[in-house]
Amino acid sequence: MGKREGKLKLGAFLMATGHHVAAWRHPSAAADAGVSFEHYKQIAQLAEQAKFDMMFLADSAAVWDRGSDALARYSAVQLEPITLLSALAAVTRNIGLTATVSTTYNEPYHLARKFASLDHLSGGRAAWNLVTSANSSEALNFNRDEHVEHGLRYERAREFVEVVTGLWDSWEDEAFVRDRERGLYFEPERLHVLGHRGKHFQVRGPLNVARPIQGHPVLVQAGSSEPGKELAGETAEVIFTAQQTLADAQAFYRDVKGRLAKYGRAPEHLKIMPGIFPVVGKTRAEAEAKFRELQDLIHPQVGLSLLQSMIGEVDLSSYDVDGPVPELPETNGGKSRQQLLFALARRENLTIRQLYERIAGARGHKQLVGSPTDIADVLEEWFTNEGADGFNIMPPTLPGGLEDFVALVLPELRKRGLFRTEYEGRTLRENLELPRPANAYVSGRRAARRDAAE
Amino acid sequence: MGKREGKLKLGAFLMATGHHVAAWRHPSAAADAGVSFEHYKQIAQLAEQAKFDMMFLADSAAVWDRGSDALARYSAVQLEPITLLSALAAVTRNIGLTATVSTTYNEPYHLARKFASLDHLSGGRAAWNLVTSANSSEALNFNRDEHVEHGLRYERAREFVEVVTGLWDSWEDEAFVRDRERGLYFEPERLHVLGHRGKHFQVRGPLNVARPIQGHPVLVQAGSSEPGKELAGETAEVIFTAQQTLADAQAFYRDVKGRLAKYGRAPEHLKIMPGIFPVVGKTRAEAEAKFRELQDLIHPQVGLSLLQSMIGEVDLSSYDVDGPVPELPETNGGKSRQQLLFALARRENLTIRQLYERIAGARGHKQLVGSPTDIADVLEEWFTNEGADGFNIMPPTLPGGLEDFVALVLPELRKRGLFRTEYEGRTLRENLELPRPANAYVSGRRAARRDAAE
Repeated sequence: MGKREGKLKLGAFLMATGHHVAAWRHPSAAADAGVSFEHYKQIAQLAEQAKFDMMFLADSAAVWDRGSDALARYSAVQLEPITLLSALAAVTRNIGLTATVSTTYNEPYHLARKFASLDHLSGGRAAWNLVTSANSSEALNFNRDEHVEHGLRYERAREFVEVVTGLWDSWEDEAFVRDRERGLYFEPERLHVLGHRGKHFQVRGPLNVARPIQGHPVLVQAGSSEPGKELAGETAEVIFTAQQTLADAQAFYRDVKGRLAKYGRAPEHLKIMPGIFPVVGKTRAEAEAKFRELQDLIHPQVGLSLLQSMIGEVDLSSYDVDGPVPELPETNGGKSRQQLLFALARRENLTIRQLYERIAGARGHKQLVGSPTDIADVLEEWFTNEGADGFNIMPPTLPGGLEDFVALVLPELRKRGLFRTEYEGRTLRENLELPRPANAYVSGRRAARRDAAE
Repeated sequence: MGKREGKLKLGAFLMATGHHVAAWRHPSAAADAGVSFEHYKQIAQLAEQAKFDMMFLADSAAVWDRGSDALARYSAVQLEPITLLSALAAVTRNIGLTATVSTTYNEPYHLARKFASLDHLSGGRAAWNLVTSANSSEALNFNRDEHVEHGLRYERAREFVEVVTGLWDSWEDEAFVRDRERGLYFEPERLHVLGHRGKHFQVRGPLNVARPIQGHPVLVQAGSSEPGKELAGETAEVIFTAQQTLADAQAFYRDVKGRLAKYGRAPEHLKIMPGIFPVVGKTRAEAEAKFRELQDLIHPQVGLSLLQSMIGEVDLSSYDVDGPVPELPETNGGKSRQQLLFALARRENLTIRQLYERIAGARGHKQLVGSPTDIADVLEEWFTNEGADGFNIMPPTLPGGLEDFVALVLPELRKRGLFRTEYEGRTLRENLELPRPANAYVSGRRAARRDAAE
């Protein structure tokens, strides 16, 4: 095959103690990571020295419910992502700062301000991972008894982006003349009032923060549902996705990139970055031993609760975890996933423990356990065959798992010419090779209004 | 009079280019301050070297409307306070970080998380200045046509604090045992579910951030209305207030401190800190010249718009600014303030320009123009005579005005034994000599519930 031009993009998906469900019990993880700024500072600086494009932080505005017995066995607390990334901005220089914030229980004016501020104080390194809330417990923290319905969440998300990007364009890039002599701080004709009145939001504007250094912070999305992919085709600049095989990754890649043209966008203006859960050893055997060590730390209550969260109502707690997965009647909750897992157990004759171990690490993302060459081979194959433009790396433990990836896999990728040795640009957009968006009021995409100060 | 024991507390109230309305035009201000992290970093580090108890940031979730002509002459943009203070937390060690956030257009779960995060990543230095929105333009950015009514705003604020402090107590201080051997991250009986159902909010909890280092971030308030003072008596630990005379300051001090007993609180558990707008020179003449220089930079459109915002509907734009304040019919807007200002103009035979110059600097706060001794005399008098426990310093320009205060006034205060030479404590609470609140579930103030993970 013809070698693809260019380098792949890498995100460092940081999650407290790491992505493996038992990470916090492992000596290579900082157990108090959930609330330790020093921990995050250390891994942010490591990721930056390694030239990762960005750090990536997930979010939830609730404690995940896993059943009362299991919950206490999880690393259940974290720092709020925008607050944390703002602090990390002050101790880094080049690495991008991607915060997940849901559109379901937030207001666009607050969010537009916070990301614009983060972009200014980081010198143009902010990115927003736009999600709709998947955690129905969030509803209960925001004055509701039930979660907002899926279709409505996407409709709201679409309008939310429209408002946020409009607010970011409130001021033209050259608006602030700060002419001390004439006493003119900004040119009034370069201030634009959004005046949005839609189904979900009514937001006048303007934003009280200057236009972000990047024009707009980079827009990241993670949805793989039909409305999720369509929203991404219209607005996303990075997609974080879960893909298990090259064929599936290629199909997803073609599907989403194929949606860009009708919005007047070029394929290279969207970077597709599947999640990778890498367990690296100097040799394959060493990697497998490391993985075994982590798997052995999964408390059965945690394993069962994970399994339960995927198969729904079925109660497995009365069965022996080292006995076979029992024959059970089908239920309503998560039907297709349930059939898939039960069929897998039947086919490979798995015990309950073996079944939950299959899903405990990467939680749906691509799991790679092997030597640096093993792992680089897969990344190269996906990258050169239009399965991915880059990857979001999900270290099993932190800081240990990231240190391994940096020390072992990155040199191999660099040897193959697949990853940078120095940052190309000053902003995240420049490093991701994404264009800086024009101000919609200047380009004419939005109609100019001049009544800001009436 | 008997000298009062102890030191006074000092806040550095940072506002972009400074507090004088024409600050940005002055050479001692950084004109691009509104969006420059380097500017804030410099003044934060200066304030910390000077041993200020805290930095204080105001906020508004809208551009202030001042009439279209005048708006463009103001420094109209800023960085969002929590984002900015999080970044500043990473480049300071001891100084407190006070962010203003309104309860009117926010949700308590978001706010509880952000302040808890800021407290963790700063090592216990966060403070929340709780306000209700005074800027009616905010309503228009949050799906409303009109501002929420005053009484309702305070009712909402009261319930908001109740929810936020409850969420901060979600986890007991010793909840996180992180017992790797047993696989137990936290002790389930040390997790508490708020289950709040009130008039304005329905919030289940628990918070997904560990209990803040300070127990609760310090609670600051600024309201001087009757419901504002009562809310402060019940919950505030610092009050930022505007007082013009020692007699008024003493009356306010007695009034608010007198409200504490019925909530079981001691007078010293609330620090009263009036705002001070200091223009300092080595001599009084030098200070007056500095002030004159700033006053001369007030553009007449800005002066008139300020005046207009205080006297209401009256239109002064057709009159000569250097002519007398005209006889005008009384209007409905801001009646008492209008009479006060017109009476002042009449009594002292002021021109329009002279009248707006009277209100352009300190905007209602105590204005002190003088030598270091002049200024220290007033601070000492208020402090030793129960008019204040400390002061929130509002530099006319930034960084220049803060540099002057640090270089000239602080040595004088220290000579008199009124201000610290080193931080006493590690957290803001310790420096302000405020007690660390007990967890309400442990003290029994809130009833324990155990259904977190059901």
